[in-house]
Amino acid sequence: MTSNHRLEALRARMAETGTDIVVLAPGAHMAWLLGVRPHADERPCLAVVTQGYAGFLMPALEAESARQQTDLPFFPWADAEGPEAALRALLAAFGAEGAGALVLDECMRADHAALVTDALPGAARSFTADTVGALRMRKSAEEYAALKRNAGQADRAMQAAWAAMRPGMTEAEVAAIARASFAQDGAKPLFTIVGTGRNGAFPHHHTGETVLKPGDAVVMDIGAGSEGYSSDITRMALIGAGPEGYAEVHAVVERAVAAALKAARPGVKAHVVDDAARGVITEAGYGDYFVHRTGHGLGTEVHEPPYITATSQTVLDEGMVFSIEPGIYMPDRFGIRLEEIVILRTDGPEILSGLPRDAVRIDG
Amino acid sequence: MTSNHRLEALRARMAETGTDIVVLAPGAHMAWLLGVRPHADERPCLAVVTQGYAGFLMPALEAESARQQTDLPFFPWADAEGPEAALRALLAAFGAEGAGALVLDECMRADHAALVTDALPGAARSFTADTVGALRMRKSAEEYAALKRNAGQADRAMQAAWAAMRPGMTEAEVAAIARASFAQDGAKPLFTIVGTGRNGAFPHHHTGETVLKPGDAVVMDIGAGSEGYSSDITRMALIGAGPEGYAEVHAVVERAVAAALKAARPGVKAHVVDDAARGVITEAGYGDYFVHRTGHGLGTEVHEPPYITATSQTVLDEGMVFSIEPGIYMPDRFGIRLEEIVILRTDGPEILSGLPRDAVRIDG
Repeated sequence: MTSNHRLEALRARMAETGTDIVVLAPGAHMAWLLGVRPHADERPCLAVVTQGYAGFLMPALEAESARQQTDLPFFPWADAEGPEAALRALLAAFGAEGAGALVLDECMRADHAALVTDALPGAARSFTADTVGALRMRKSAEEYAALKRNAGQADRAMQAAWAAMRPGMTEAEVAAIARASFAQDGAKPLFTIVGTGRNGAFPHHHTGETVLKPGDAVVMDIGAGSEGYSSDITRMALIGAGPEGYAEVHAVVERAVAAALKAARPGVKAHVVDDAARGVITEAGYGDYFVHRTGHGLGTEVHEPPYITATSQTVLDEGMVFSIEPGIYMPDRFGIRLEEIVILRTDGPEILSGLPRDAVRIDG
Repeated sequence: MTSNHRLEALRARMAETGTDIVVLAPGAHMAWLLGVRPHADERPCLAVVTQGYAGFLMPALEAESARQQTDLPFFPWADAEGPEAALRALLAAFGAEGAGALVLDECMRADHAALVTDALPGAARSFTADTVGALRMRKSAEEYAALKRNAGQADRAMQAAWAAMRPGMTEAEVAAIARASFAQDGAKPLFTIVGTGRNGAFPHHHTGETVLKPGDAVVMDIGAGSEGYSSDITRMALIGAGPEGYAEVHAVVERAVAAALKAARPGVKAHVVDDAARGVITEAGYGDYFVHRTGHGLGTEVHEPPYITATSQTVLDEGMVFSIEPGIYMPDRFGIRLEEIVILRTDGPEILSGLPRDAVRIDG
């Protein structure tokens, strides 16, 4: 039941990067590489990969359940004895005690990471950016197809919310409509951010009981999970004519999206895409109000590499899937964010959503 | 809005333990100490406490939202620049650059922990067991009252499930009834494990479509959250007469619970409680089938210190709240676990649940 072609790809990558041992925690990396999703708690449960071996340090009471997901060897440990001896036995069996270059899952708990580094005192520690992370960035045709279906669900949820949206509704009521649409499509809602009026100026606003009122601009940033993959989209709605000065700022964000889409090509560093969007916004005089990066990768997780930041040296490549989502946040007035998910093709990005980026006008 | 008496208690504890600096991640420790629950993602967001200062390394786009929860100083960092410079500025402002003894949140992501340890290369690193963890183990009167109300909700959810339980229902249907009861009480269900027949022999069974049938023993382990605290209880039901040999094994588990309750006294090490339960089960010949520890602490999290394990040297004290939950798991036959949550008083444990531990018989 293990995804052996992914394990083979990782071993090739380990050889290229001089990595002796990769240790992963329960979470997205482990699920992607080995198809195993163990219960995660304070008990160390670790997947260990070397060129010759792959196996698990496994809490005894999870072993039966995890055995249904993988045939790889387990080094089980019981609560009564603790994990140290089982980890030593695993490292010895894998010939990994003298490992010089260790790659750790960056999402691993700090105490579990310390258990590993204490057991491999001579190893130089880094995280997965050049190994598992690099492999996960490039999506296969099957992964693209799943992400495209997810994007269609998000489009439908957005349209359902727009169709129901009226002045006098609360943000929470609008979010519930989007969630119901996702649920009807068999998708599990992961986030349904609705920020109306000045709430839209908080990029990670907690959707609440604020009422939509004439003159508001409404940011909707929604996403769900199905088939093990995710969706993520942000669009704008206006209640009546929206706030004063809205159209000008929306046009700047739209130009920033267009500039980023134009900059995103295979072989280009990720920061070039951020530079393009940020340059448009800064030139228009709104640079101080674009407080976040231009984008993030999307796949089994909503946020994953590649990150599209001002400093990223990651070289973009065909098959990478990421967001382009510049925003301008005007304190006490309104916020605007427009978010596309794209897959990078030879000649540039293909947008997964079918929705235009114009603000949708809602009349009472 | 900060819980200043908790911060004062932590600083006293830091002085006693020779701790120069405590660094916490978003999660239970940060919420308990400072009342701050920031959005947690790949961006480092850290609370830093020394004797003279307390403040946050804060992602810029979370600052506005987090500011509504605390007045402590923020050292914000934008996606465009990364967190390193802001962390250095924070450590310099707090006079913490030369810290000799660093305590890290054990639940912190490994890459965020590395950011901290790289910035404090001279510091000896340990986790929170002797500082924040030690303080959180002893519950106040208000915390006890919240946990007692949570226990009442779990009792009602268990009774609702028993009242509806019939042969022919699926595990998932039984779990849904418990969840509905929690929801009616305003509690958020956290886990509703229902394991019937041989499924009960997996301590962390994934509740599914298995049908309850005459002769089954049904393990139900359920818990929910309300008021920021949790519940957790396990009881047994029998469909008809239950499986052959059930009564004898149930009596052994019951004797193990009673022995652990008797052993739990202030001043006793936690392993003595585990020894008591394990001793009864081993003597009865079922030692190989008790595959987990005897218990775990309960509070804002379902699993937190103190852990009641065979090796724990933690000294139990008045006000500590933890589970006593021995179990015997007979592969391919059935499992039995009986779980009480107790608070330790001067003269021994007070049980929070009002339900007897006898198996409840369900007739079709």
